[in-house]
Amino acid sequence: MRISLQEAADKLREAGRIVVTAHVNPDGDALGSSLALYHLLQKLGKTVQVLIDDDIPDAFGFLPGIEVIAKPDEEKYQADLLVLLDVSMDRVGRVIERCPAPILNIDHHITNDEKADYLYLDADRAATAEIVYQLAGALQVVPDKAAATCIYTGMSTDTGNFRYSNTTPFTMRAAADMIEAGAEPHVVSEALEKRSFKEVQDRARAMQTIEVCADGKIAGLYIGNDLYETLDTTEGFIDGVRIIDTVRVAILMKEVEPGKCRVSMRSKGVDVSSIAASFGGGGHIRAAGCTIEEPLAAAKAKLLAAVEKAV
Amino acid sequence: MRISLQEAADKLREAGRIVVTAHVNPDGDALGSSLALYHLLQKLGKTVQVLIDDDIPDAFGFLPGIEVIAKPDEEKYQADLLVLLDVSMDRVGRVIERCPAPILNIDHHITNDEKADYLYLDADRAATAEIVYQLAGALQVVPDKAAATCIYTGMSTDTGNFRYSNTTPFTMRAAADMIEAGAEPHVVSEALEKRSFKEVQDRARAMQTIEVCADGKIAGLYIGNDLYETLDTTEGFIDGVRIIDTVRVAILMKEVEPGKCRVSMRSKGVDVSSIAASFGGGGHIRAAGCTIEEPLAAAKAKLLAAVEKAV
Ligand SMILES: [Mn+2]
Ligand SMILES: [Mn+2]
Repeated sequence: MRISLQEAADKLREAGRIVVTAHVNPDGDALGSSLALYHLLQKLGKTVQVLIDDDIPDAFGFLPGIEVIAKPDEEKYQADLLVLLDVSMDRVGRVIERCPAPILNIDHHITNDEKADYLYLDADRAATAEIVYQLAGALQVVPDKAAATCIYTGMSTDTGNFRYSNTTPFTMRAAADMIEAGAEPHVVSEALEKRSFKEVQDRARAMQTIEVCADGKIAGLYIGNDLYETLDTTEGFIDGVRIIDTVRVAILMKEVEPGKCRVSMRSKGVDVSSIAASFGGGGHIRAAGCTIEEPLAAAKAKLLAAVEKAV
Repeated sequence: MRISLQEAADKLREAGRIVVTAHVNPDGDALGSSLALYHLLQKLGKTVQVLIDDDIPDAFGFLPGIEVIAKPDEEKYQADLLVLLDVSMDRVGRVIERCPAPILNIDHHITNDEKADYLYLDADRAATAEIVYQLAGALQVVPDKAAATCIYTGMSTDTGNFRYSNTTPFTMRAAADMIEAGAEPHVVSEALEKRSFKEVQDRARAMQTIEVCADGKIAGLYIGNDLYETLDTTEGFIDGVRIIDTVRVAILMKEVEPGKCRVSMRSKGVDVSSIAASFGGGGHIRAAGCTIEEPLAAAKAKLLAAVEKAV
């Protein structure tokens, strides 16, 4: 059932024991929103538990309160309300079965499955953290430095640090308020930009293998399984391809296991979601992905044939 | 003579023919501020000429009005007012001698030489573009999409896209207003992030040569003259070093000619300005630079001895 922001705030006010969760494979918005809500509810005197059914990336160690996040264990959690942030019912792992309570879902993804007992969805917000910022207002709680840092982090990560097209005047003003409340842009960005020496070297090695074709309109990074197995992460690799000035379609292809290639595409002006769909994948016009069950060379040939036709 | 923002606006209102200039080696704030002021003054019916005594980097080709910028030629320019933006009297090249007019200087650098006839200086502003934003208010001109894009670009570039510690709530709110007026964050950031394929490859090649020492506390990129001569740019290379998680001092050393090394340092917690000063350079605690008149290997040894003592 869809509810209003004020009704969502009322549900939180009425509950005494609250469990907060977010999606598995948690990102800055999932963690920032969850911890921000934790800090706000603590101020209201609630008993709050944050459960995430996954490992927390080290990069988020700077988030105030990160140490309270637990993985659900075998026991049942007693709560008056289970809050799902930045997610639908399907990507929260074992939290729902371990915590039998009415579910309040707060999200900004237009793809939300609308299966929660109560849903506040605002697809105009760049991040769930923006909605938590609004909730603070509805709850009449002033974010402290900890909550502000968490909200700021969620907004910053989901907007590519205020660079993507989802960045709105609302985003910037909310971020301004959070900086005023104590969030430090350079502290957050330095923490998020940190890489191990190995990651820096791996990335440099990978970037040297970028191949361009179609007069530079297509550029791709094709990572065979041997190389893939040596990498700690390929996060951000596609951005290194996308920035090439002549590129209309940027490709990252990773042979994640022998004979199975995962593909990400970013475009300027070309609809890559339809290319991805032709391989059984999906996404948006400017960002899409698919999986091709072929060894690297064969997968690359098939994909390039399709992309060349599109550009 | 120091004047107020309103007095600066009055000077602009009183003048009919205005020449606008900024520092040589122009950056996003120099160009963004100059063109934003150009657009605002055009709206007031002024005759405006933008002169920059240097080449304009291609990366700024997206700035609305970039085509009106000219290099001063041999003739004299008749004007009622010469406006110097984002600069002191000393870094505007031949513009002052070619344009004999009262000088209004608008700047945010605390190091301003205060030699202009009229100076409005606000060192609390992250960018001169923020002051131009305030000037629009004082002049009662509403920035159009062109002016807004230029102001947004100046703020974005001088704050490292709202990541540096100079980013304030004022910055974010001004940026919000500019987005509302038509600036598009993703358009500006994509234009500024563009690199040629060669630049991407060069950077990857360079990043593979990063060396760490002192238990990872020092990381450096040491570019000999042979390699240096093959590079179109080393812009942003130091950021690739700075992000390494263990690093307290990041170094970029470039042998710009045989036997002459230019050094940039970035630090977390170590005062690199005093290290730079010991080699005749200078800067801030967190960012400093110097030149060492030695071949690469000798310069590197001398610098590392000093940095190792400091960390
Ligand atoms: Mn999100
Ligand atoms: Mn500036």
